[in-house]
Amino acid sequence: MNVDGVPYRSIWRQGRSFAIIDQSRLPFEFHVIDITHMESGARAIRDMQVRGAPLIGATAACSVALAMQEDPSDRALGHAVEHLAVTRPTAVNLRWALERMRGVLQSVSATDRADIAWQEAERICDEDVQLNQAIGRHGLTALRALCNQDRAGPLNVLTHCNAGWLATVDGGTALAPVYLAHDQGMALHVWVDETRPRNQGLLTAWELARHGVPHTFIADNAGGHLMRQGTVDVVIVGADRVTRNGDVCNKIGTYLKALAAYDNGVPFYAAVPGPTVDWTLECGDDIPIEERDAAEVIHVRGLDDAGAPAQLRILPEGSAASNPAFDVTPARLVSGLITERGIAQASRDGLLGLYPERRA
Amino acid sequence: MNVDGVPYRSIWRQGRSFAIIDQSRLPFEFHVIDITHMESGARAIRDMQVRGAPLIGATAACSVALAMQEDPSDRALGHAVEHLAVTRPTAVNLRWALERMRGVLQSVSATDRADIAWQEAERICDEDVQLNQAIGRHGLTALRALCNQDRAGPLNVLTHCNAGWLATVDGGTALAPVYLAHDQGMALHVWVDETRPRNQGLLTAWELARHGVPHTFIADNAGGHLMRQGTVDVVIVGADRVTRNGDVCNKIGTYLKALAAYDNGVPFYAAVPGPTVDWTLECGDDIPIEERDAAEVIHVRGLDDAGAPAQLRILPEGSAASNPAFDVTPARLVSGLITERGIAQASRDGLLGLYPERRA
Repeated sequence: MNVDGVPYRSIWRQGRSFAIIDQSRLPFEFHVIDITHMESGARAIRDMQVRGAPLIGATAACSVALAMQEDPSDRALGHAVEHLAVTRPTAVNLRWALERMRGVLQSVSATDRADIAWQEAERICDEDVQLNQAIGRHGLTALRALCNQDRAGPLNVLTHCNAGWLATVDGGTALAPVYLAHDQGMALHVWVDETRPRNQGLLTAWELARHGVPHTFIADNAGGHLMRQGTVDVVIVGADRVTRNGDVCNKIGTYLKALAAYDNGVPFYAAVPGPTVDWTLECGDDIPIEERDAAEVIHVRGLDDAGAPAQLRILPEGSAASNPAFDVTPARLVSGLITERGIAQASRDGLLGLYPERRA
Repeated sequence: MNVDGVPYRSIWRQGRSFAIIDQSRLPFEFHVIDITHMESGARAIRDMQVRGAPLIGATAACSVALAMQEDPSDRALGHAVEHLAVTRPTAVNLRWALERMRGVLQSVSATDRADIAWQEAERICDEDVQLNQAIGRHGLTALRALCNQDRAGPLNVLTHCNAGWLATVDGGTALAPVYLAHDQGMALHVWVDETRPRNQGLLTAWELARHGVPHTFIADNAGGHLMRQGTVDVVIVGADRVTRNGDVCNKIGTYLKALAAYDNGVPFYAAVPGPTVDWTLECGDDIPIEERDAAEVIHVRGLDDAGAPAQLRILPEGSAASNPAFDVTPARLVSGLITERGIAQASRDGLLGLYPERRA
């Protein structure tokens, strides 16, 4: 997508290294980092310089290529995969990308491994962009269906966290249909959940502002009320892992919005590229939920009076804080899973209908 | 309650003026303000130097006394009541307190009005403390009932916003049973919702820390996940207005927690002193929901590296924000209303059972 007229992906190869946009500094500073060693890639994932399930997978794949460039041995491959796999526990795209890299590389001779690793990592990146384009097209169909009623104002979409182009290599998952609809002239407006504690809603607002999509930033508490008021037509979120039964694991707070959508008859969609489906898990209860550092809850980032990035402590000493990073929305609350193959019912049959090759 | 060993109410008379704790500076600074003119009282309510439905009512009553001290005419009384009534739209305690003051004062001669106004305002304050003590006792019964199971750890209470002693004259509503239980040796732990955008959870954490009640501060997004995990035994919130049918209007985000509690079989109580019931409204859809300044969403307060209070802008220019301050939780999601007369079913019959004098 464009940033001030310049086309960007969120990750790209630069010869013997790869570059990322440091998302821990957005929206306050736009800063590109060159990742030259596997360990820096692992740190970028762990510290959320990159985030979003698809981008985490792509970053891990590129980091394996860096490792192979340095040492193409079996031992180094095993170490890289294992080291990267534990950087974050919840998004299954991480494991998916690493297993794909290992699968391709283990039968390749050491002399070719670095080249093949880069090829495969770049293929993963390019495929992600294609998956998201397909998600955009299928999601647009769903948005158009909601516009068939006699509506006066714009279609109101609510989203939680950031599942835009920054969360992917490019294009976004939940925002892919929004961008496509906007580009095709559909009148829409996006309610952007702040998404405490990491405030990824700021990334969504930043993206939407740059693309000219009308939007309003709201506290995470507001969505239920807006749905009761009838000012939300559809909720679309991304996903970090979807299980065979259609349960959706996504950023903490997603479940609350799904409950409110269900209670108010508002369609609730998760945009889910194939690599986000964990075919090894039957249901969401088995997904490991990452507990991140309480410091993320205790502090908040922003701009000071001079417009410089700064951080404040909001919770004074004397109180503990807890920071579960994801929750699980049961399939019964999900209207549909927008995949690259079409919109699936959030159920075993729905998913297997689109991915018949996954039947046991 | 005690602050560093000194007993405080949140509001008290000081001769010809009254004092409040400036809650817009808590928990970062403890600062007492002397309110000497009715207009300063109105501003304190509007700018949320005082907040919490019961305390808003008490502050309005004391502000009427200030006005009568200056000018005890009928015209001044009418002006004071009308001016104060529009400071905030949602909490019905404001209107209740003002109507009570007007009812008492309009039959009193101008020479006695200031004295009678102070008497009545102080009576409203003292009664609030008594109401909250009774709410504490009835709420404790509900908490004890939940402890009758064979439980290993403490009773886990989740609360949203601040309905502690700071939200009242003293004692609190939702936190009254918590304080009483803790004082009687019951093992409990409170999950404290941050309550964006004004972060009143910081007031709750501040209160609980000062009273030695174990607690954990969480993002507003976390509660649903915690309930799914089975780590919340009961939700207790305050209320800004309850209608005849038992609908509960409270701080924005309450509805989302009620949905999650209902979905997980967790009891959800609202602590409701009599003056918070609006007997003139049939259901919550008729309650005016305050839309506050978007600046409250865009900025956040905290402590800088030197420990000094400071403010940051979190949402850069280029995005709008919206700030609805309350939502309505339908009675069907409410397990009970903890009143000073006992625990009522959240229904017309439940409320009228405890307040038979309100039958039409």
